[in-house]
Amino acid sequence: MQKNKEKLKADALVVSDTSMLAKGVPSITYGLRGLNYYQIELTGPVRDLHSGVYGGAVPNPLTFLSELFAKLHGKNFRVTVPGFYDNVKKLSKVERKALNALPWSRKAFQDAVGAPAYCGEKGFTTVEQLWIRPTLELNGMWGGYQGEGAKTVIPSKAYAKFSTRLVPGQDPQRIAKLVEKQVRKLLPKSVHCKFEVLSTGKPWSAPYHAPIFQRAQAALEKGFKKKAVFIREGGSIPFVTQMYDTFQVPCVLIGFGLPDENAHAPDEHLYLENYFSGIKAIAHFYQDLATL
Amino acid sequence: MQKNKEKLKADALVVSDTSMLAKGVPSITYGLRGLNYYQIELTGPVRDLHSGVYGGAVPNPLTFLSELFAKLHGKNFRVTVPGFYDNVKKLSKVERKALNALPWSRKAFQDAVGAPAYCGEKGFTTVEQLWIRPTLELNGMWGGYQGEGAKTVIPSKAYAKFSTRLVPGQDPQRIAKLVEKQVRKLLPKSVHCKFEVLSTGKPWSAPYHAPIFQRAQAALEKGFKKKAVFIREGGSIPFVTQMYDTFQVPCVLIGFGLPDENAHAPDEHLYLENYFSGIKAIAHFYQDLATL
Repeated sequence: MQKNKEKLKADALVVSDTSMLAKGVPSITYGLRGLNYYQIELTGPVRDLHSGVYGGAVPNPLTFLSELFAKLHGKNFRVTVPGFYDNVKKLSKVERKALNALPWSRKAFQDAVGAPAYCGEKGFTTVEQLWIRPTLELNGMWGGYQGEGAKTVIPSKAYAKFSTRLVPGQDPQRIAKLVEKQVRKLLPKSVHCKFEVLSTGKPWSAPYHAPIFQRAQAALEKGFKKKAVFIREGGSIPFVTQMYDTFQVPCVLIGFGLPDENAHAPDEHLYLENYFSGIKAIAHFYQDLATL
Repeated sequence: MQKNKEKLKADALVVSDTSMLAKGVPSITYGLRGLNYYQIELTGPVRDLHSGVYGGAVPNPLTFLSELFAKLHGKNFRVTVPGFYDNVKKLSKVERKALNALPWSRKAFQDAVGAPAYCGEKGFTTVEQLWIRPTLELNGMWGGYQGEGAKTVIPSKAYAKFSTRLVPGQDPQRIAKLVEKQVRKLLPKSVHCKFEVLSTGKPWSAPYHAPIFQRAQAALEKGFKKKAVFIREGGSIPFVTQMYDTFQVPCVLIGFGLPDENAHAPDEHLYLENYFSGIKAIAHFYQDLATL
């Protein structure tokens, strides 16, 4: 892209990789969270040990991995990495109000998740926790024996994959450094830590009052016979920021998936009505974009 | 055994499943730790979720598993389960002194373990931490994505296998109940917990001044041409307690493995000199036992 900037020049970028707010609510996404993904490997003993012969006097890397992640969230479910929230851009009252006024359904959300109870950063609504607040989440964790029954082992190694979702104002490179620094600070010297940043990705948000967004809204209304809304989204599409940074053109994100369609999980699927209405809406939008 | 008590009646029980203290130190084990083994399964969301779409507002079972195990050890590496240490039998000063005077080698221990640094319950020597103090150790832990690279998932489930080593005075059934109670108490209501006790096993110790132990010591000296010592061991042989409880006869534990022979781990092996000297020692011991 960098090498073919002139050749690839365009008036706008249209991406279909986002979701609709709900069934029957065509949506234009104007904000994404960024994503840094990390992996750590802790080593205690150089080899797996018998937990009877050695238990009680050697560092168990699973224990220290647990203690580490327990310390990375504080009270009120805030991330405890110093400086993590430093540059988070505050949303205007108007925008916050607009986001919370959307026909977002708590019931649909809870039906999709099905957890016994919910938790999240205090002081923010669920929509805000999902779209405009940064997070730190464990994505995988493993070490020791995982088979049937019992094996009395103290493992040599313990692993975790985790990620931070970032919001406008947060610089992924800076956050990666802050996270590594805090992880190393929290770990005792009895375990060795290999820390890897697997990827970094910027957050993104667009001025949705710009004309092209109004055109997208009109096209969606034609396709779906319903007024389209402006939403943000908690996921990340690092490609959008890369394109925006390179070409400095408006990016319009219109997708047709639904929140309960198991994106990135088993049984991912797509509601057919959205497939057909989406085709119509996009056709209207491209036709209109040609007159820009 | 219970059904054939009379038929199986014997004068003594001799078991070879323990280790020697060190190379060139024939050893008779007169104390074992007991072992309870547990497995827990935590469920947050009913299905795996996209960590961008849902991250920040749903309970991640890996996070709560981490917080749980961080809370199960307190300051000074003590197990925080209320009542855990209640009935632990205190050793006499004489016995504690004898154990600490054994030719136990810190260098051999650290060479075998090879950790960057060590940790254990405060107020006890390493030998005491390994042999006469109870522990709680994670033996396995897993959940979420474990493959190459990144997957942005919030897992539905997180698992852990862990065990408590028990010492004389602790009742395995009671400890299992206390551990389950504390685990359930520490977990938030946002995750469901399935708690299983996979096995329980009593600790054991014997009065090593009894005549049969003196005969064992003499036989070992004949086989190894070295004075045998009385040791305890951190591992568990639930079978020994079962046999002792059933037949109420002296149990003599003489084994010929070395601590650095990777018991229960990859590359387990046996030093040949101990194999041959062990055969001689056991032959002397059985011959002598026949004169009892």
